Amino acid sequence: MTMHCMQSIFKASSLTYEVEAVCPWSGARAGILTTPHGRIETPVFMPVGTNAALRALTWEQTADCGAQIVLSNSYHLYLRPGHELIREAGGLHKFMNWSRPILTDSGGFQVFSLDQLRKITEDGVFFKDHRGGKKHFIGPKQSMEIQNAIGPDIMMAFDECVKNPATEEEARKAMERTHRWLKVCTEEHKRKEDQSLFGIVQGSMYEHLREESVAAVTAFDLPGYAVGGVAVGEDRRTIERIVAHTTPLLPRERPRYLMGVGTPWDIVYAIRCGIDMFDCVSPTRLARHGTVFTTNGQMAVKNAGFRKDFSPLDENCSCSTCKNHSRAYLHHLVRQGEMAGLMLLAIHNVTFLIEEAQSCRKAILQGSFQDYFSRWSSTRGPLAVQ
Amino acid sequence: MTMHCMQSIFKASSLTYEVEAVCPWSGARAGILTTPHGRIETPVFMPVGTNAALRALTWEQTADCGAQIVLSNSYHLYLRPGHELIREAGGLHKFMNWSRPILTDSGGFQVFSLDQLRKITEDGVFFKDHRGGKKHFIGPKQSMEIQNAIGPDIMMAFDECVKNPATEEEARKAMERTHRWLKVCTEEHKRKEDQSLFGIVQGSMYEHLREESVAAVTAFDLPGYAVGGVAVGEDRRTIERIVAHTTPLLPRERPRYLMGVGTPWDIVYAIRCGIDMFDCVSPTRLARHGTVFTTNGQMAVKNAGFRKDFSPLDENCSCSTCKNHSRAYLHHLVRQGEMAGLMLLAIHNVTFLIEEAQSCRKAILQGSFQDYFSRWSSTRGPLAVQ
Repeated sequence: MTMHCMQSIFKASSLTYEVEAVCPWSGARAGILTTPHGRIETPVFMPVGTNAALRALTWEQTADCGAQIVLSNSYHLYLRPGHELIREAGGLHKFMNWSRPILTDSGGFQVFSLDQLRKITEDGVFFKDHRGGKKHFIGPKQSMEIQNAIGPDIMMAFDECVKNPATEEEARKAMERTHRWLKVCTEEHKRKEDQSLFGIVQGSMYEHLREESVAAVTAFDLPGYAVGGVAVGEDRRTIERIVAHTTPLLPRERPRYLMGVGTPWDIVYAIRCGIDMFDCVSPTRLARHGTVFTTNGQMAVKNAGFRKDFSPLDENCSCSTCKNHSRAYLHHLVRQGEMAGLMLLAIHNVTFLIEEAQSCRKAILQGSFQDYFSRWSSTRGPLAVQ
Repeated sequence: MTMHCMQSIFKASSLTYEVEAVCPWSGARAGILTTPHGRIETPVFMPVGTNAALRALTWEQTADCGAQIVLSNSYHLYLRPGHELIREAGGLHKFMNWSRPILTDSGGFQVFSLDQLRKITEDGVFFKDHRGGKKHFIGPKQSMEIQNAIGPDIMMAFDECVKNPATEEEARKAMERTHRWLKVCTEEHKRKEDQSLFGIVQGSMYEHLREESVAAVTAFDLPGYAVGGVAVGEDRRTIERIVAHTTPLLPRERPRYLMGVGTPWDIVYAIRCGIDMFDCVSPTRLARHGTVFTTNGQMAVKNAGFRKDFSPLDENCSCSTCKNHSRAYLHHLVRQGEMAGLMLLAIHNVTFLIEEAQSCRKAILQGSFQDYFSRWSSTRGPLAVQ
């Protein structure tokens, strides 16, 4: 089997996905995803701008970090400023002035996280605003209305994601509801010509449920699929087991998205399993805590050891923070609680995860991903850095 | 009297100041100030980076706002990270990676502001760190040592600035001490070849004290002079009276700096009086409170009226925030407490004050400053907007 015979092009009205190369050893893929707002080279890390902005970065800085696509949260946008206001502004791209592709989640994950505030029915979820306490209802129909108003290139199905550990019965119940809701989503989605709806596979930690879910979700013939319900309480080995088991079951010619993941290792491991897209708040959240990713693991910039360290955060990083500033300067800013410190760390962390995925892409295209992965896991993998 | 006969060039070892044009009606000047780190077109507004960073802006963004020179605070840098660390880093320019000119204040203003913590002697001030409580001592000698270690292009004399209202006796005492300390500063300053020491005129609200102070301070033949003790409690009319009285007394061929001022009107008025340099924390402080400067006065972006306002903050502004974002979007970010909101407002406010000074400069160079000033004061001046 050679790399080249694995190439394929998938076309939907709202999206094109071209597989450029597949690693024959692992099934890791490099591809080009084309949406109405442009071209994305996969595997790709998508930074998260929950409230229509990344934490501590302007959109200019986000683009400078190399972001090709960003994620925003329907739940938050629905509450504030409201999806109707965003529609009036001409959609989220215009509202926040980001011209590259956008993906939104469905709001499902957030409303199911509001343990104290929700009541679930067959049509969706009643909940109280986490601020202000006003009552709201979101189900698959409302989620499609919201996402059609917001106007991302890629919108996600409204699903139920159980936290782990979950019993098999809880996992099955949520999975089956996710499948019934997916049917409603496909019927209520009104902009199929320019917005791609991705289905979400659930099934918690149970392989046979994951298989059942892949079959049910892919039956809807959607332009892309996501693995959901991962990194919601389970340990690293369980995440790896579920991703490794589920990903290869998804149609190989369509884009595959692993939701809410994560660390550099999570990304590299999931790329090995055949995942193309990732999102996580970790780079900006870690920055707010004064911590950065480096090729030697995470580093707390606040630590006294960096007070007189005039080297960059990471010798191997090409971000503007590493090009321009020393650990000593960043240590000083973080210690003083200066916002510029958080911004500079966020620039580094966001660039770092984007580059992590792009380095895998290069190795896949060069046919050297097996070597790349072995080296990565033996020098930087979770066993190596423990 | 024509503009051209007013041109002059002043050369010191550490600085050149060329007067390019003088408004014959007002005495307002346009000039070029050249320091070891580059050329500054005056009148100039200098943004303030207290802790070696502007609040909510990276240096890249600060440069994009058009900043030609920035101010930093010796008091804060002395305490954290410490002037010796900055010396070890190769000076403040290298430590924070800002290659354009820097001015530092002397620390005097801050230690005299610590009412509860200080004890004044003829040699300087004992004080406790506003954080941590450790005891320190700074006088004119120490201030010169600190500023010689930090390495700004322009350093300020260690002075005593009384808050207003002050009695004539208090004002005289502080002024005379300022003069005695200036002598120590000139003796202790060790880098006269590449750092310019500016003397500071005090005298509070008393014209005859201001005259006495100008005579005493200019007797030291320094490369530049500042008007201090302004905007420290007195009303706008008093500020105007003191600036209008004091500025023309200063040698016209050397740069003149009005410390800690302020609003767009303060700047335009002081330029009319012949001031060349300004600094104030107002642009970044206002941004943190969700307020911006506009050509129609200050505007609180948080106000409900801007929720659906898709126009820019100010139609006449060329900053990246006004080019890229709407009031509705900024309103949303400020309401959500997103750091990106503060950053975008800070970009606008800093650019706005820099442009305010640069617009005066253009008018002075074109010989139209009298018209410019009349139009400004009748449409935007404090009486027009009240």
